[in-house]
Amino acid sequence: MLDEYEIIRLITRRFGRLPRGYSQIGDDVAVIPPGGAGEGVVLKTDMLVGRTDVPPGMTWAMAARKAVGMCVSDFASKGVPPRAFMVSLGLPAGTSREKVEDLASGLAEASKEWQVKLVGGDTGEADDLVIDCMMVGFAKKVVPRDGAGPGEAVVVSGNFGRTAAGLKMLMEGAKADVGFRRSAVASVFRPEPRLALGLALRALLSSSIDSSDGLAISLHAISEMSGVGIEVDEIPYPKGLEKFAAANGYQAEGLALYGGEEYEIVATVSRGKLREAMERAKAAGCELHEIGRTVGKTGVRMADGRKIRRDGWIHFRGKP
Amino acid sequence: MLDEYEIIRLITRRFGRLPRGYSQIGDDVAVIPPGGAGEGVVLKTDMLVGRTDVPPGMTWAMAARKAVGMCVSDFASKGVPPRAFMVSLGLPAGTSREKVEDLASGLAEASKEWQVKLVGGDTGEADDLVIDCMMVGFAKKVVPRDGAGPGEAVVVSGNFGRTAAGLKMLMEGAKADVGFRRSAVASVFRPEPRLALGLALRALLSSSIDSSDGLAISLHAISEMSGVGIEVDEIPYPKGLEKFAAANGYQAEGLALYGGEEYEIVATVSRGKLREAMERAKAAGCELHEIGRTVGKTGVRMADGRKIRRDGWIHFRGKP
Repeated sequence: MLDEYEIIRLITRRFGRLPRGYSQIGDDVAVIPPGGAGEGVVLKTDMLVGRTDVPPGMTWAMAARKAVGMCVSDFASKGVPPRAFMVSLGLPAGTSREKVEDLASGLAEASKEWQVKLVGGDTGEADDLVIDCMMVGFAKKVVPRDGAGPGEAVVVSGNFGRTAAGLKMLMEGAKADVGFRRSAVASVFRPEPRLALGLALRALLSSSIDSSDGLAISLHAISEMSGVGIEVDEIPYPKGLEKFAAANGYQAEGLALYGGEEYEIVATVSRGKLREAMERAKAAGCELHEIGRTVGKTGVRMADGRKIRRDGWIHFRGKP
Repeated sequence: MLDEYEIIRLITRRFGRLPRGYSQIGDDVAVIPPGGAGEGVVLKTDMLVGRTDVPPGMTWAMAARKAVGMCVSDFASKGVPPRAFMVSLGLPAGTSREKVEDLASGLAEASKEWQVKLVGGDTGEADDLVIDCMMVGFAKKVVPRDGAGPGEAVVVSGNFGRTAAGLKMLMEGAKADVGFRRSAVASVFRPEPRLALGLALRALLSSSIDSSDGLAISLHAISEMSGVGIEVDEIPYPKGLEKFAAANGYQAEGLALYGGEEYEIVATVSRGKLREAMERAKAAGCELHEIGRTVGKTGVRMADGRKIRRDGWIHFRGKP
């Protein structure tokens, strides 16, 4: 059976020596070089727990990559490049070498994919898999949640409902066409945070949030914190969502609004900057959809007047 | 039943607004003001898990304070003042308001006691209590583990074995006098990291580590990473340890060397700086004991020649 030191070695050997200015993994604390002049330290932590966050079929490599990606997504929505991360692991007693290797490969992949350095962590015993990622970067300012003004465009980085559909397939056995199943399950197992887009747009957005708790909650968060109402014309669905929903007795709109676990950017941008935002998004290889506008001071609704509930993925409440 | 937002509110309402330059709790990321010119960012994470780290009788307030204190102790041993922390919580479904309030009070106490600001965190559902603390500070340099030279004094900030004895009382029903029981159990429930001492000595120590994994492992870590041998004359015991050990069939030396969960500083200092270190320790309200010296290049032993094993509190191995 592996002990703590063996586990740490299996993970750290996937990572090379850190550059000058960084401490090496294994000292009591991690040290990373300072940011630029006047740059604050940007921090995020996100905890993934096996039973609630790892659906059937998701490997520990995928779980580890996702735990890092969850933090990357928040950095993306704030327009801040992540620099380094630490990871605290809770592992069940008797965890096999293969499982640890798998987890390590996911951390290594995440580190490479998002250019973020593993600088330390902690390992202990827990009843269930726990992967807590803490991420660090630097910025003079971040795109806030509370900066949306009146008469602005509401934009999103992708379409919504695919991940909720994928979770329904994995957790509830919902049926789907091969093509939609593949893309939906992939969106659960390999979320793709919009880092390039978030960095490309950071100077243009007035407010921004990632949609990890669901589109509806994200819109409400911007609305409440900015003191603006939001009216949504149309929610972009992935191809195949409506057919999937009809075949399984779900509402496509419900999956898109309240599903969560999607790592898109939900943001506002003034009319004068909208075209440039669209162009920069395209240059970053990403579509930006204008889904609505800020109107009045409160409320989040569809353009036909129906209210969008403040509901979504809330821990201890479960899925709506 | 409390949901995620209610839990966050119960915790954050114990903390005031953060000063200018800090983000307020609740945005997607936390931002803290930059350190001084040329100061690197110092990071530490330590995860506390209910089943393995919270003995019978320890409240959630104590557990929360300890989770923060574990990080503070690492900062202390590195001579770095902690600035801010984040906390990721895994809570069992159905956790009561009283438990959350208790946990919140422990976080608030820790924040006040060690002057470290809570700037963010994450909350999710887990089978067991998980408190993962991540701490941030700034420093131009930290006291390393690998800086011990030949012919230096080995010093420690307190005596050893009390916490191991307290754990034996709590976990195995070991018997003790009222006075020793009280101090031993207190050392388990309310660890006192040596922050004032660590900051007072930071310019004088050649190497340093905190003894949270046990005195033996700490000495071995300094020895291995610095490439020096260590000879120990005598290990300082708390009053009552030997009587307790004899009455319960333990070895006092074993409790002191291999027990762990003690948050003392174990360090080396050159002969020329030893007197000043002692004086600064006294001024910081703390005793510094010279327990031995560095000799040769490898090995950790008692002055009478007996080897000190590289053993202690290692997760997934359990207590020796």
